[in-house]
Amino acid sequence: MNIGVFDSGFGGLTVLRALLEHIPGADFCYLGDTARLPYGAKSRQTVARYATSSARFLVEEGAEYLVIACNTASALALDDIRAAVSVPVLGVVETGANAARASSATGDVLVIATAATVESHAYAAACAERGLRVLEKACPLLVPLVEEGWIDRPVTAEVLRIYMTELMEQAQAARFTPDTLVLGCTHYPLLRAQIERTVPRSLRVIDSAEVTAEQVAQVLGAGGGAANPGSRVRFFATDSVAKFAALGSRFLGRTIPRVDLVDLGG
Amino acid sequence: MNIGVFDSGFGGLTVLRALLEHIPGADFCYLGDTARLPYGAKSRQTVARYATSSARFLVEEGAEYLVIACNTASALALDDIRAAVSVPVLGVVETGANAARASSATGDVLVIATAATVESHAYAAACAERGLRVLEKACPLLVPLVEEGWIDRPVTAEVLRIYMTELMEQAQAARFTPDTLVLGCTHYPLLRAQIERTVPRSLRVIDSAEVTAEQVAQVLGAGGGAANPGSRVRFFATDSVAKFAALGSRFLGRTIPRVDLVDLGG
Repeated sequence: MNIGVFDSGFGGLTVLRALLEHIPGADFCYLGDTARLPYGAKSRQTVARYATSSARFLVEEGAEYLVIACNTASALALDDIRAAVSVPVLGVVETGANAARASSATGDVLVIATAATVESHAYAAACAERGLRVLEKACPLLVPLVEEGWIDRPVTAEVLRIYMTELMEQAQAARFTPDTLVLGCTHYPLLRAQIERTVPRSLRVIDSAEVTAEQVAQVLGAGGGAANPGSRVRFFATDSVAKFAALGSRFLGRTIPRVDLVDLGG
Repeated sequence: MNIGVFDSGFGGLTVLRALLEHIPGADFCYLGDTARLPYGAKSRQTVARYATSSARFLVEEGAEYLVIACNTASALALDDIRAAVSVPVLGVVETGANAARASSATGDVLVIATAATVESHAYAAACAERGLRVLEKACPLLVPLVEEGWIDRPVTAEVLRIYMTELMEQAQAARFTPDTLVLGCTHYPLLRAQIERTVPRSLRVIDSAEVTAEQVAQVLGAGGGAANPGSRVRFFATDSVAKFAALGSRFLGRTIPRVDLVDLGG
């Protein structure tokens, strides 16, 4: 089984990392559309055009199953991607919402994400479809903190404390009784331990990278390719291959030996 | 005199704010190309196309003098803009470099800016032309901190302390004797007091919004329109007019009563 993973950048490598753990026998190809990021501020039409060309590239490279590890593309272009390719497609917003539904007893869920994801209200819509009430909060400082590599700095703990205090106050004001917090950005799994330390213990933290890998493993059956003696993983990016390898290794948790540059046009 | 001010977003409103103080008699029109931001990650050709269409719009609206308050457009497209319009054009990178030249006795200058501006090495080139040595540092957390409005939070002081300590260590390792620090991003004037509190007293802080206004006032002569009883200021944006008015007021230091939406195409 060859699994294609797509993101606008390298945040989706946290999803690939979880997939490698859950489906060790499969092969993987990862595409970061780094030349055209960020998707967050772009129109639905443009995101759909970028995401479908990226998805087609991965299928041409042999992907038999696609994981859309980009929140914006999952939110705005999942139907377009499904129409453009003939392989099964799963997006991180729906897997996060599935996991929230399975986790929450009270039906009240909190989501933290980038400003663009919050403004799209993609998690709110996906959670509402599953009968959940949702409070979404944009945390625009978390991505640059992760990209600076300041994971364990006191300043990051303080930023998290401010965001989480605000979120819990908003939840209280809205008479929410939340028991689940969804990490709605592929950068946030790197801060998972810090976030769990900051929020009340009554809140279960849903790491969308982790739950996406679990759900893919479930769909593909035990192992998804267990006969395969070792995974072959290939990396593609549309820009700045050196930066991708350097920064990406932090997200993947292991060295990225080679990244191939691809041109998908404007 | 009607002065046009252009930025990809609302950061350039710090430049407009300084211009209003220095040239109180002039009229102003401000354009934020918010639909197409950020410029930082885009190619020179694309930035030039966006910036020239924006500059032409301001001239059509009556601007007789253009201030390019966008670091990326100043760095990548100043010649294209000058070729596209018949009015004088001044960019924030050159005014910042001019002020650094006038300020520095040692000839060693520090610049802090966004990652995109640092990667363009625009300040390094402009300062080198003026016989200065430069050390540039990207500070990617400062823009989101300003946009969150966390100006006076302890967490912002701590982020500044980390960045400035790293910068001074790099300066020492490079055997620099800096006496001047250029704020190479139009968001940073909002943190000027905090930055001045963090750096050694021997370092003079150059606020590029402030020095741009001074240099425009100098070029246009005393007052630049002193006969005018009061400034007329018009605001245009290519997207999210409501967000522009709300967030922009913080940068301008006064309420923005009205923003007109304009369509400059893709």
